[in-house]
Amino acid sequence: MHELVNGIVPTEAGEQERLIGVGELKKTARRLYEAVGVPKADARLMAELQVETDIRGVHSHGTRHVPGYAKRLQSGHTNPKPEIRIVREGPAWATIDGDGGLGHLPSHRAMQLAIAKADELGIAATTVVNSRHYGAAACYATMALARDMIGFCVSSSSRGVAPYGGVDRLLGNHALAYAIPADREYPIVLDMATGRSAWGRVATARLYGRKLEGAWVLDRDGQMTDDPHRAHALVAPGGAKGSGLNVVMDVLSGILPFGLATVNRGEELQGQRQASHFFQAIKIETFCDVSDFKREVDRMIQTIRASRPRKGIDRIYVPGEIEWLKKAAWEKTGIPLHKTHVESLEKTAEELGVEVAW
Amino acid sequence: MHELVNGIVPTEAGEQERLIGVGELKKTARRLYEAVGVPKADARLMAELQVETDIRGVHSHGTRHVPGYAKRLQSGHTNPKPEIRIVREGPAWATIDGDGGLGHLPSHRAMQLAIAKADELGIAATTVVNSRHYGAAACYATMALARDMIGFCVSSSSRGVAPYGGVDRLLGNHALAYAIPADREYPIVLDMATGRSAWGRVATARLYGRKLEGAWVLDRDGQMTDDPHRAHALVAPGGAKGSGLNVVMDVLSGILPFGLATVNRGEELQGQRQASHFFQAIKIETFCDVSDFKREVDRMIQTIRASRPRKGIDRIYVPGEIEWLKKAAWEKTGIPLHKTHVESLEKTAEELGVEVAW
Repeated sequence: MHELVNGIVPTEAGEQERLIGVGELKKTARRLYEAVGVPKADARLMAELQVETDIRGVHSHGTRHVPGYAKRLQSGHTNPKPEIRIVREGPAWATIDGDGGLGHLPSHRAMQLAIAKADELGIAATTVVNSRHYGAAACYATMALARDMIGFCVSSSSRGVAPYGGVDRLLGNHALAYAIPADREYPIVLDMATGRSAWGRVATARLYGRKLEGAWVLDRDGQMTDDPHRAHALVAPGGAKGSGLNVVMDVLSGILPFGLATVNRGEELQGQRQASHFFQAIKIETFCDVSDFKREVDRMIQTIRASRPRKGIDRIYVPGEIEWLKKAAWEKTGIPLHKTHVESLEKTAEELGVEVAW
Repeated sequence: MHELVNGIVPTEAGEQERLIGVGELKKTARRLYEAVGVPKADARLMAELQVETDIRGVHSHGTRHVPGYAKRLQSGHTNPKPEIRIVREGPAWATIDGDGGLGHLPSHRAMQLAIAKADELGIAATTVVNSRHYGAAACYATMALARDMIGFCVSSSSRGVAPYGGVDRLLGNHALAYAIPADREYPIVLDMATGRSAWGRVATARLYGRKLEGAWVLDRDGQMTDDPHRAHALVAPGGAKGSGLNVVMDVLSGILPFGLATVNRGEELQGQRQASHFFQAIKIETFCDVSDFKREVDRMIQTIRASRPRKGIDRIYVPGEIEWLKKAAWEKTGIPLHKTHVESLEKTAEELGVEVAW
C-alpha cells in the first residue's frame, strides 16, 4: 500500500483507511501512555518516536503498537516508570540498563550517549540491556544525522527466521538501521530487518486480506509460500549472505550486550522480554571534511537515482528516500492509517477513559 | 567445486586441478613478489595472506592474483616499495596512506592499529587511502580473533553491481568481513561481497566452462541469466536490502576514507586504482565477560547446526565453517588449484626467472 509512482506519494486514504493528523496522533498516543502511568516526558518521547515512524510509512513499527504496549504496561510485563541508568562506562562506550521499561527510552538515551562519546573520540558504541521492543531502528540511527555522524543500531529480536538451508524459526528478525548525512538530498537511511521481511508485513497482509508480494515465507514443511496465514518462518534475504549477516547482528545485539543470542532465547524470553540493543556513532569530521563528505553523498544519491531502471520499474530510489517523501507529504495531509489500526487506538482510549484528538 | 557433503572436505584434485602444498605455494608466491622488487617482509606477508585465502577455498581472492599483481608492480601501476604511514591519528582512530602499494600491506597495518586502539578504548576504527585491491576481507577481520575482539572491515570496489531495480553497473562489489571469536567451535567469519556473488566466481565458471548456479547476473538488457559469458552486471543479494547495504558499505569504504564513492569512480579509478578501506575492532571484554561471550557463541553455532535442514540440504553450516574445515583438511593434503591457476603461476615464474617450489 502507499506505493510511489515517479516519486509521488499517495495522500488520499484508501477504502480501508483514515487520514489522521500528525499532531492529533501524537497527542493521542501521549495521552494513552500517560493514562497507563508513563511519566509525561517519557510519554511525549514515545509518541514522538512512534508517530515519526508512522509518518515514514513504517506502520508495522509505529502507533499500531500503542494498545499492546499499554496492556503490557498495565499488566506489569513492562515497567511504566523505569529507572534507566548507566551501569558501566568508558570514554568510548557504555552499557545502559533499561529497567524493564519501554525499549524506546533507554535506546534513545544510549544513542545520545554514543553520539556524545563519538563527539569526543571519533567513534563510540553503547549497549542496552533489560529492555523491550525498541520500535523502528531508524528512530535512533537518525539521531546521529544532526550531529554530522553516521549512526548505526541493531536490536535483539524474537526468533522467526530460518537459517540458510533450514526450516526452524531460529534466527531473529533483527531491526537494524544505518543513517548517513547528506547535503541537499535527504539523508540515506537504511532501516531494515534481517529477515526477508518483517512479521509486521505478514500481519499487514492478513489485515488487508491480501497475499504476500511473492512467496517469501516458509510454511511448516519448509516450502515457500505467499499465503500469510501459512507463514511459519521468515527466510533471510539473499540466502547465505543475509543469513550470515543475521548471525553477526545477533552477536552484536544479543551476545555482546546481554550474553545471550536470540537463537538461544527460549519461550520465556520471546515476545521482546529482555530485549538488548547495540548503538554506534562515527563522527565524520574525524576521517574527512564534513562538507566534502555530504556533497559526495549527494552526488552518490544523484548518480544512483539517474541510472537506468529495469523494464517495469519507474525510477530508482536510494535507501530511506521513499520514507522521507512520505514524511514530507503526510506532514501536510495527515497519515493514512488502516481503519483497524485507528479503531484499536480508539478502543484503547475508551477503555482508559482518554479522549482521542481527532 | 569442492562442495562439502556432511562436513567432509574433498581433498583429491579434480580432473582440471592439481594439489599444491601450502608451504610450496607460500614459498613460490614469496619468490615471485621478491622478483618484482617487493621487500622480503612484505613479500612474506603477501604470500601468507594470499595462501591463507586459497586454503579457505576462496581461490577468487588468493594466489590467482599473483601474476596480475606482479605485472602491475612491474608496470608501475602498483608501487613495490610503498612508504606506508599514518597520516592522521587519534586515540580511537587513524588514517593510513598506502602509498599506492599492494592493498594488503596498509590493510594489515590498519587492522593492527584498530586492534591496538580498541585494546585501550574498547572500540576503534581506521581507514586506508591510496591503496589497491586488498584481497579477501577475512584476512584482516580475523586478526581480531586472537585478541578476543570482533573484527570488521570493508573495501571500496570496482563498479559491477546494479542498484535494486536498475541495470547499470554502478554499485561496488565491496568485500567485507566480520570475525567473531568462539570457544571450542571455529570462530564465525562472515566474508562476503555486497553483490549477489563475486566477479571472481563468474570468472571461475568461465574457466571451468560451466553455467552459473542459477540465473544471478544481469545481461545488457537487464534480463537475469546463468550464462557467465553474457554477464553484464551483478545484482545485490536480497533485493532492496542488499542494495541498501551496498550503498552503506560504499559510504564507509569510499566516502569516509577518501571522499569518493565507488559509484562515482570513473574509469580512471576502476581496476582497483585508489582503493580505500575501513577497519573496525570491538573489544569484547568492554561489554561482557569474554568466556561467557565465547561459550554463548559456541552454543549459538551448535543450535544453528543442529536445526532441521530443508529437503535436499545435508546439514546447516554457520558463516566461515566450511572455510575452516577446508583449511583443516588442505593443510595436510595440499590445496586443489585449477590447472590454469597453477600454470599461470609457473609461467610468471619462468618469465621472472624464479623457481617454483613444487
